[in-house]
Amino acid sequence: MTGKIYGLGLGPGDPELVTMKTVRLIQTLPVIAYPESQRAPSFARRIAAQYIPDTAIELKLHTPMVIDAAVAQSEYDKQAEIIAEHLDAGRDVGLLCEGDPFLFGSFMYLYDRLMDRYEVEVIPGVTSVTAAAAAAGTPLCSREDVMTVLSGTMPEEELEKHLSVSNSAVIMKVGRHLPKIRNLIEKLGCLQSSVYVERALNVDQKVMGLSRLEGDIAPYFSIILFFRDSE
Amino acid sequence: MTGKIYGLGLGPGDPELVTMKTVRLIQTLPVIAYPESQRAPSFARRIAAQYIPDTAIELKLHTPMVIDAAVAQSEYDKQAEIIAEHLDAGRDVGLLCEGDPFLFGSFMYLYDRLMDRYEVEVIPGVTSVTAAAAAAGTPLCSREDVMTVLSGTMPEEELEKHLSVSNSAVIMKVGRHLPKIRNLIEKLGCLQSSVYVERALNVDQKVMGLSRLEGDIAPYFSIILFFRDSE
Repeated sequence: MTGKIYGLGLGPGDPELVTMKTVRLIQTLPVIAYPESQRAPSFARRIAAQYIPDTAIELKLHTPMVIDAAVAQSEYDKQAEIIAEHLDAGRDVGLLCEGDPFLFGSFMYLYDRLMDRYEVEVIPGVTSVTAAAAAAGTPLCSREDVMTVLSGTMPEEELEKHLSVSNSAVIMKVGRHLPKIRNLIEKLGCLQSSVYVERALNVDQKVMGLSRLEGDIAPYFSIILFFRDSE
Repeated sequence: MTGKIYGLGLGPGDPELVTMKTVRLIQTLPVIAYPESQRAPSFARRIAAQYIPDTAIELKLHTPMVIDAAVAQSEYDKQAEIIAEHLDAGRDVGLLCEGDPFLFGSFMYLYDRLMDRYEVEVIPGVTSVTAAAAAAGTPLCSREDVMTVLSGTMPEEELEKHLSVSNSAVIMKVGRHLPKIRNLIEKLGCLQSSVYVERALNVDQKVMGLSRLEGDIAPYFSIILFFRDSE
């Protein structure tokens, strides 16, 4: 019998925002895997830490900071093989995923490589999308509103095309794209109604009106909640 | 001291997909409130049932099936006052919300009425958006993909405008709008790549390719995952 792989959504960072199911699986699966870069310890590992038993086999999946797409693909190939060894030996593997495994995560690259060969179950998690809304105290959408989720890394014209048809938008991966995004939102007349959120619902969260945010640099995982100004 | 109100996201239906924090609050808050219509018992109450202690005061918020907007507003006014009585008496109140409180829920109507007078904390939950993706085994977005979340109740031209600029879209509240939505997706050439999901991750879930779905009626809370056909 080969093992089964679980994509475990961990939510936005607070260990209490992990679901009962993911906690149970972390506590009982024999192998727990997570990405780890050389630059910083694994955030996913930190969220799950208090639930991982001493008896678990921990698999650190080396994730280099690479720009080159071919190198990145070859790294995901290697990660998939490391996981497959345990699955072939009959051990179930839980892969820790920040937020939700199927929303902007690196889980998909492993999913693509393993789904045809092994049984996979994805446990959804609280996304940083609704965590940011909770942190900011701002409902995202109701009735016939349209909400768009997109990446701040896209070109300005693309971004404008999408924001101009949305009641609300959640702009992920703001990082160094902050000046471009802020200028665009100002041009659309929605600076006063939009909100900047950093590390939503973590102990060091930062929430403020976008118009009050100073500086041109934000962390990679910061989010802007764009709301159409109803005036 | 007045009480505090908590908007408790319960996730898509499986009691194990509730977060540790929401479980703790349900187990300890003195008052647990939830909407209940005359037509059916509360789904939110059912998700939370095993966590509600016998000692909790349960507040059923009567939710009539009304079309008239003014009547609905007056019902939310009444619900807010029922909750406010407990808050004024110093009791914290947990309001049970299916999914996430800030994504297409009726919580917002109460939030609007209470947020200025009382302390409010929103606990995000797993949304039916990512639950549907997990049920279908289909990643929602990665890299610079654009995902749109919208309501199937909107007019066809509006819907087309949004689908035509999205890599993926989550169409909520499909219900009796199924024929309109399916025809549109067929016209856009994405019938084979899109998926129908009913009661995601509940014991009676139904998942199938949209092209294989027969009939013209779906439950109100069914979802279509629209994926642009990459061919």
